[in-house]
Amino acid sequence: MLAPRFVARQLFVGVRRWNHTPAIPALSPVTEQDVAHFAKFLAPTSIFSTLGPNPIPISELSPYNNDWMGKYHGKATTVVKPKTTEEVSKIVKHCCERRIGIVPQGGNTGLVGGSVPIGNELILNLGSMSKVRSFDPVSGILVADAGCILQSLTDYVAPHNHIMPLDLGAKGSCQIGGNVATNAGGLRLLRYGSLHGSVLGLEVVLPDGTILDQLTTLRKDNTGYDLKQLFIGAEGTLGVITGVSLLTPPSPQASNNVILALPSFDNVLPLYKTVKQQLSEILSAFEFIDRTAYDLAVKHGQGRGLHDDEIEGAECFVLVETSGGRREHDEQKLNDLLENLLTSDEPLINTGVLSQNPAQFSSLWALREGVTEAVSKEGKAYKYDISVPLSTFKDVVDLTREHLKSKGLLHEKGVKHVIGYGHVGDGNLHLNVVADAYTLEIQNALEPFIYELVASHKGSVSAEHGIGAMKTHALHYSKSGVSIEWMKKLKQLFDPHGIMNPGKVLEMP
Amino acid sequence: MLAPRFVARQLFVGVRRWNHTPAIPALSPVTEQDVAHFAKFLAPTSIFSTLGPNPIPISELSPYNNDWMGKYHGKATTVVKPKTTEEVSKIVKHCCERRIGIVPQGGNTGLVGGSVPIGNELILNLGSMSKVRSFDPVSGILVADAGCILQSLTDYVAPHNHIMPLDLGAKGSCQIGGNVATNAGGLRLLRYGSLHGSVLGLEVVLPDGTILDQLTTLRKDNTGYDLKQLFIGAEGTLGVITGVSLLTPPSPQASNNVILALPSFDNVLPLYKTVKQQLSEILSAFEFIDRTAYDLAVKHGQGRGLHDDEIEGAECFVLVETSGGRREHDEQKLNDLLENLLTSDEPLINTGVLSQNPAQFSSLWALREGVTEAVSKEGKAYKYDISVPLSTFKDVVDLTREHLKSKGLLHEKGVKHVIGYGHVGDGNLHLNVVADAYTLEIQNALEPFIYELVASHKGSVSAEHGIGAMKTHALHYSKSGVSIEWMKKLKQLFDPHGIMNPGKVLEMP
Repeated sequence: MLAPRFVARQLFVGVRRWNHTPAIPALSPVTEQDVAHFAKFLAPTSIFSTLGPNPIPISELSPYNNDWMGKYHGKATTVVKPKTTEEVSKIVKHCCERRIGIVPQGGNTGLVGGSVPIGNELILNLGSMSKVRSFDPVSGILVADAGCILQSLTDYVAPHNHIMPLDLGAKGSCQIGGNVATNAGGLRLLRYGSLHGSVLGLEVVLPDGTILDQLTTLRKDNTGYDLKQLFIGAEGTLGVITGVSLLTPPSPQASNNVILALPSFDNVLPLYKTVKQQLSEILSAFEFIDRTAYDLAVKHGQGRGLHDDEIEGAECFVLVETSGGRREHDEQKLNDLLENLLTSDEPLINTGVLSQNPAQFSSLWALREGVTEAVSKEGKAYKYDISVPLSTFKDVVDLTREHLKSKGLLHEKGVKHVIGYGHVGDGNLHLNVVADAYTLEIQNALEPFIYELVASHKGSVSAEHGIGAMKTHALHYSKSGVSIEWMKKLKQLFDPHGIMNPGKVLEMP
Repeated sequence: MLAPRFVARQLFVGVRRWNHTPAIPALSPVTEQDVAHFAKFLAPTSIFSTLGPNPIPISELSPYNNDWMGKYHGKATTVVKPKTTEEVSKIVKHCCERRIGIVPQGGNTGLVGGSVPIGNELILNLGSMSKVRSFDPVSGILVADAGCILQSLTDYVAPHNHIMPLDLGAKGSCQIGGNVATNAGGLRLLRYGSLHGSVLGLEVVLPDGTILDQLTTLRKDNTGYDLKQLFIGAEGTLGVITGVSLLTPPSPQASNNVILALPSFDNVLPLYKTVKQQLSEILSAFEFIDRTAYDLAVKHGQGRGLHDDEIEGAECFVLVETSGGRREHDEQKLNDLLENLLTSDEPLINTGVLSQNPAQFSSLWALREGVTEAVSKEGKAYKYDISVPLSTFKDVVDLTREHLKSKGLLHEKGVKHVIGYGHVGDGNLHLNVVADAYTLEIQNALEPFIYELVASHKGSVSAEHGIGAMKTHALHYSKSGVSIEWMKKLKQLFDPHGIMNPGKVLEMP
């Protein structure tokens, strides 16, 4: 059995690479002359190149050419790290004239290969633009360079009792410009909404080098088309975001959480409704974990599990978090909710455990956040980040499992688990298929099956991760032909030479 | 003195009309043949025309041709009121082929002449598309025809304990499609954010008749460019919004308010900071009224005033509203805030009055909302709806007053009052200049003075009212040349024949 599987995996890898690294279109490579040109206006410490008077070994470009998962590999010879918007403008202008492809790069923490080159494009890394330009502690409006790291900004506004409107696992590395370019969601979306609402202004270098200054600090401005919205989620394909103005909310004074064990998935939606009603404005997370995901998390030592008798008969779990302005009020609301739930004639939950201190609070979160790590310890995961109607979460997981079973793939040496977890509040389901190994057979059983399933529910094949290089071929499952046609028209209008992050979001023409 | 003033007023009216009604470009008028064509697919009750087999007198088109202020007057011969998106598509396709200008019209409640024709364009009124398409009481996601009246939608979601994310004075007439097309702000923006965040999807008929279906009900969908954002605030110049999907928040269980009298404007910002901190997530409004505005409201019987000794020495007033999930918690927070404010060593306020019942609650709001009516009773008002940094609110009012004084215009027979009030939380100042009469001299003293003042603070010349036909000439005070150039490029891309709401937002080419 070993030889055939080995062959199948080789084939599989080959197919994936062919799918994901289409040939670069008629763009020019960076030459020594280009590097010499950049040296006229960039500091020597802003240019990293295997070409020109101070060549470095290609290995030193590895952190820029490869994504953090080790899945996508670019072949750039040159990385520039400008310090000002004017420098970005000059770089882009030159690349436009010379038809050199540009990959705008932030913290390079994306999951879909959007921030590394497909071929030998120039990497324009924003990491050296990392100044806070202004912060108004009264309005909470922050203006920052695109290269500011999310955690640094969180630390910057904290003494003023403000928080960033988004929070991600990658916060220690990801940059605010990249967050905006990818319309990052994360853990605070339920409470503070999307970046389309929080971002007040942007400064963008357009593909011809023009600086589009829409870096307003106004909450309300109805003077013409809201151009900045186009760049939020465009993944650097329409221009390079160099500055961001955004609204930061006041810090909550208290956070609490509780884990609830449910006898049936059917109770999730009534429970969500009840919780929203009773916790109202202090509800900040409502996370779903199915039984298989929970068991895996506990098995691999993620967070604190409930007692055996507490989880007996539980089909799934929900983690509820509150964040509010006064601890005693929040605790009272949460205690009352639990009491109502447990004393109801037809209880929606079997049991509920309220965290009593910061360690328990973290431990409950670790159960939910640890699913990712547990999955990677258990086997090889096929991960799908999808949006579907809340009511179909379980169906999508069950149908996928049945489909794999019908193909004879559900066994100890094939697919071991099909699990679902995610943000109920946002309609965002993480569907993970955990297998013994990556094989072409499983891959072909899953795609386009899952994409078609998502499309049948009018869902999204990428709820928060974006399209990048990975899903350009799957865009049509979530967007109509007319929508894609108009995306192409906008791309053509802003970037007629196709130099800006080529091959990302839209397939190359 | 009477004759010269009369002449000046006539001139003034003439100049305004010339400014605001530029010649229509090379578009075709609606003919009998066009009406006959519409009759092939529209019900007889969907066509109102002075032309064709069933002509009606032009006076019957008056409610469509004229705005509610009686300030803008169109000359349309024909109004169509389609019942379906397909009908809208057919109408637009025909107009595109025939180069007939189209004015998409909702409730016609705008303040800048955006919803009535400049010349004899066809009026496409959405009022007959007024069905709720779906509502999910769990997620709170509502999908509705563009012609649904805001109040009807409020009533529709109320039994499910949800509210609309926006609230306006015009809610009894304005339509959700118009709200979205104008990016309406209103009273709930501080709490629920802008429509760029609340709107999840749109269905739009593009200027060539194509239906762009982005009517998703997903909270998270990162699959390509967020095209729908372009139509939010485009005032119908890029396409006709026919359907809207939006997120409705759970209803608050309790609302309270308090009016605070401040010894000095300098205290407004520290007070805002304190209030935000202490009321946190239940703060739903923070409205500013300067002393002159307050006195006018009281003089003209708007709402309940404070006692004379309570307002002695007060330079301005602030109305604070809370909306939260539990009455006793909210009241406790508000009481504690008041106690802290009044017992502080250096009190930010002179006095504060908390409403004790629904009647008092309404009465306090009436003070703030009644300023508009008080102003209209006091004289003729030049109204400016601007966004400027919070810290400059008073300066902008004072500088305008001084400027008018320096021109010798501040006297009983000229400008009587210069007042400021508005949404501190949103940075939105309503600057009103109340005069004995509209005169060219005052007009010329105010413009471009105020627009330049706004521009010097990087503010917005239209915070929430939009550009419409009224402010196309002033767009450049708030948007850079590059921004305006890109708006024009987008207009050209979507509407190459310039048929869609011509002369609005952008001046005609």
